[in-house]
Amino acid sequence: MSEQPAFDPTIIRSKALIISDYSGDLAKLELVERSLRPLKPHEVLVKVAATPINPSDMMFINGVYGITKPLPAVPGFEGSGTIVSTGDQLYSKVLLGKRVSFATQSPDDDGAWADYVIVAARQCLPLADSLSFEQAASAIVNPVSAWALLEIARQRNAKALVQTAAASQLGRMLVRLAQREKITLINIVRRQEQVELLRVLGAEYVLNSNSPDFTEELASLCVAQQANLAFDAVGGELVGQVLKAMPKGSTVMVYGALADGTCQIDPRSLIFENKHVTGFWLTDWISQINPLNFARITKNIQKLLIDELASTIQGRFKLAEAQNALELYQNNMTGGKVLFTP
Amino acid sequence: MSEQPAFDPTIIRSKALIISDYSGDLAKLELVERSLRPLKPHEVLVKVAATPINPSDMMFINGVYGITKPLPAVPGFEGSGTIVSTGDQLYSKVLLGKRVSFATQSPDDDGAWADYVIVAARQCLPLADSLSFEQAASAIVNPVSAWALLEIARQRNAKALVQTAAASQLGRMLVRLAQREKITLINIVRRQEQVELLRVLGAEYVLNSNSPDFTEELASLCVAQQANLAFDAVGGELVGQVLKAMPKGSTVMVYGALADGTCQIDPRSLIFENKHVTGFWLTDWISQINPLNFARITKNIQKLLIDELASTIQGRFKLAEAQNALELYQNNMTGGKVLFTP
Repeated sequence: MSEQPAFDPTIIRSKALIISDYSGDLAKLELVERSLRPLKPHEVLVKVAATPINPSDMMFINGVYGITKPLPAVPGFEGSGTIVSTGDQLYSKVLLGKRVSFATQSPDDDGAWADYVIVAARQCLPLADSLSFEQAASAIVNPVSAWALLEIARQRNAKALVQTAAASQLGRMLVRLAQREKITLINIVRRQEQVELLRVLGAEYVLNSNSPDFTEELASLCVAQQANLAFDAVGGELVGQVLKAMPKGSTVMVYGALADGTCQIDPRSLIFENKHVTGFWLTDWISQINPLNFARITKNIQKLLIDELASTIQGRFKLAEAQNALELYQNNMTGGKVLFTP
Repeated sequence: MSEQPAFDPTIIRSKALIISDYSGDLAKLELVERSLRPLKPHEVLVKVAATPINPSDMMFINGVYGITKPLPAVPGFEGSGTIVSTGDQLYSKVLLGKRVSFATQSPDDDGAWADYVIVAARQCLPLADSLSFEQAASAIVNPVSAWALLEIARQRNAKALVQTAAASQLGRMLVRLAQREKITLINIVRRQEQVELLRVLGAEYVLNSNSPDFTEELASLCVAQQANLAFDAVGGELVGQVLKAMPKGSTVMVYGALADGTCQIDPRSLIFENKHVTGFWLTDWISQINPLNFARITKNIQKLLIDELASTIQGRFKLAEAQNALELYQNNMTGGKVLFTP
């Protein structure tokens, strides 16, 4: 047990960013100060060190994420910090004083864009000393997703993979994990500078979807490499283009919707080529795996976060600077993580 | 063996409708007269009695079907007739003089829109005496598809089914087969008179996709009946609407593309609701089943074709009247089968 004294959360005033509707109007994101409620036995209080802005947060604010929370709600699905108070259960108590990554996916929990947050003890992962709070802030959503996607590829005996939005933080993690495991990965980006960026990381196959030869190049590469599984974070027309390019029997698995548009699928790809479109949601995936297996995965990921899976961080903001933070994030989504550091 | 004498196909001049390109321009469909080639050992010569116009024929003429044949090509994927000459193999020879249904899916075969057609003996199904040539002309594409879809539903333990284009010939067969097997089927049509038509057949759940309450009605019905598998022949926006209406974990299986548009899928249905979009093609399905099982299925279907699965026939045309036949077909696709009766 830590010697650091726990304190009663009800005595402190906590600052948090809140939304009062799901209109997606970022100007309405408001910084409020409020009292915290007492902890339940299975809960802990985290003093937040850093919490990122992720694509899933933007979907949440727009009311189009897979989870909606009662309003007013605090956004933010993950973060890092120190546990400063705990409920009475043993597994809560042993965490007192620990540095942790945490997730706040439960519909009953407030999100992480706050200086203090109450979360279930089982949603906290103690950190290795060598891992900084800033890297640990993004230790769950992107790295566990990348890990899970490669695990799915293995289970399906995928011969080679395609990914869209390959220059995103998650996309770059997939590039590094695929290199590590010697899995062939065909990367699709939207701009020439992103091609360079991925080449620097050592990616062998990188295609620009805005190049005039994209369709032909993608089709010949998919056939040559027998790429029969694709991960898509874009949505829109690209899903159908990728599906068409892959050999018969292939699957596109959609895990994000950056293009904010409906997936456009040629029915002939489905009918005559035995192709499939499906989805991936980290929350569902985690709920289906064994907790011990999850602990093993996150331990492995923490090791990798120190170098191979390290996120680039492009900006750090106080909660009061939310508008600046969101502006930077939206204008340069591949520039690196934007963090709140309350 | 039959006593009817076989004759040499090379001595006759056969009439056939041909396309010379895949432009889809129906005005270019041309009636030609030509000599037939000698039969190979595994082949038979069918004197065609009746051959239908199916949606797959229109896709073939437009070059968007899963099979293209060398040009000039004869359309028509099925028909009925009498075997008047055979190749030397035993299984060919025993068919001499028999009344049969036949399929012409092989890329090397000419299609059925002709007065004589050469097909592989194994693609011929001898007919029960009580089955007319007109009903037997459509004994494969629609009825076997309907049978296969219900077989897939059983394998997937589907709780209840949804189908679009429910007033089509295939849709009506699904209605009757589902009634027979006491499977709950939610039928979607596009016009009020089609609602009436299906009610007359005894369909319990029939929704008009152009009614203002369609979306809500479909969603509440899908949830109440736990309909987790849908068969779609329309494509376009309807695929995404049906997918959204069904409970988590559901699948839409696309088998046709009457709307001639890309399937529009909300990525959130895939990501957050674990839903899937896939396809069905009769040719693939038949290639994967045991031939004995296929023989059993077609035998069962022939019994049903006499009453329960009988097609409505709205027009009979000579090959020379192709333009009139296609016009009737395109103007009234749910009015019944349009047949060529050479």
